[in-house]
Amino acid sequence: MTVHLVGAGPGDPELLTVRAMRLIASADVIVHDALASDEIIALARPGVELIDVGKKPGNPTPQELINTLLVHLGSQDLEVVRLKGGDPFVFGRGAEEAEALVAAGVRCLVVPGITSAIGTPSAAGIPVTYRAMSTAFTVVTGHEDPAKPETQTDWDALARAGGTLVLLMGVGRLGAIADALIAGGRDPQTPVGIVERGTLPSQRVT
Amino acid sequence: MTVHLVGAGPGDPELLTVRAMRLIASADVIVHDALASDEIIALARPGVELIDVGKKPGNPTPQELINTLLVHLGSQDLEVVRLKGGDPFVFGRGAEEAEALVAAGVRCLVVPGITSAIGTPSAAGIPVTYRAMSTAFTVVTGHEDPAKPETQTDWDALARAGGTLVLLMGVGRLGAIADALIAGGRDPQTPVGIVERGTLPSQRVT
Repeated sequence: MTVHLVGAGPGDPELLTVRAMRLIASADVIVHDALASDEIIALARPGVELIDVGKKPGNPTPQELINTLLVHLGSQDLEVVRLKGGDPFVFGRGAEEAEALVAAGVRCLVVPGITSAIGTPSAAGIPVTYRAMSTAFTVVTGHEDPAKPETQTDWDALARAGGTLVLLMGVGRLGAIADALIAGGRDPQTPVGIVERGTLPSQRVT
Repeated sequence: MTVHLVGAGPGDPELLTVRAMRLIASADVIVHDALASDEIIALARPGVELIDVGKKPGNPTPQELINTLLVHLGSQDLEVVRLKGGDPFVFGRGAEEAEALVAAGVRCLVVPGITSAIGTPSAAGIPVTYRAMSTAFTVVTGHEDPAKPETQTDWDALARAGGTLVLLMGVGRLGAIADALIAGGRDPQTPVGIVERGTLPSQRVT
């Protein structure tokens, strides 16, 4: 059978794609992570098998185990949906899951979703591009501490590159990231918008 | 009433969001551009007024006129959908339309869509991020000629910034852009994927 790698979008169930909605409603098994909201899970049919592989602090599901699980389920006569927050191929290790499935001979189809990197600011009224002001944008995770020498992100290059910078999961390291960008040459007066729990009823925009 | 700035996604009607589908089906007027596919327009109810403001070469609708039209429609007792390809706030002058509406006192709600910058490579099986290989990505239009002195895009900085680079509408200037990026320091061996007419039946992946 086929494993569908499905993007669940930024959180609001109405921001699911029509295809994602259809696949969730017909799936036999849904393998989901912590970012898939309860309202979205509730769209599944009665009797669906739900497997939560959310990586919670202190109790992580290793990626290798998720890959093995997907290959196992995908080898059976089951409609399998692997539901991931946002888009399955944006900062979510979805590419590794697709690779594991293809290597095992299991058909894998990707259903793109609205990445929170763009959908969340858009829904909050913040455009990531604006003619004559910002003709490019860069998306980067704010997970990494810019002060650590092993950081994979070249903050100096990001500071110099211009355009809009979208930081995902950056609230925790906001100060350190702002310092690194200013040290790299960004104007300290650069306007900043912060969206927390984007598109959900508890959304906060600063 | 309200003008909804709605993203139509990359082209495939099943990649519309549930909210976009619902708003298209109930709209009195749909103001759309050339990127909204016929299959998507066909989802509108019978009797809907369709206004095509697509900017075609040689016969452009000035942005100012589109803004005025939206304000005019939005001031009447009508359900107005402004349908734009991809996401309304990614390279589409949607921000200017929102500004014009807000300035005129017309309520404006943004419904994010899947931008072709991410949805198209995802649907074609190309991840824009990959753990330990690409932890950031930058989206830029390939409209501009890197050889022209008035280019707004800093190709040198983009070349140095690392991460995945997504070029929209870049097929026409592919050679010049590749030259500019290599001159700026990108490895000439960088793998490249090209998707044309993404998510549509005529899609071509190179």
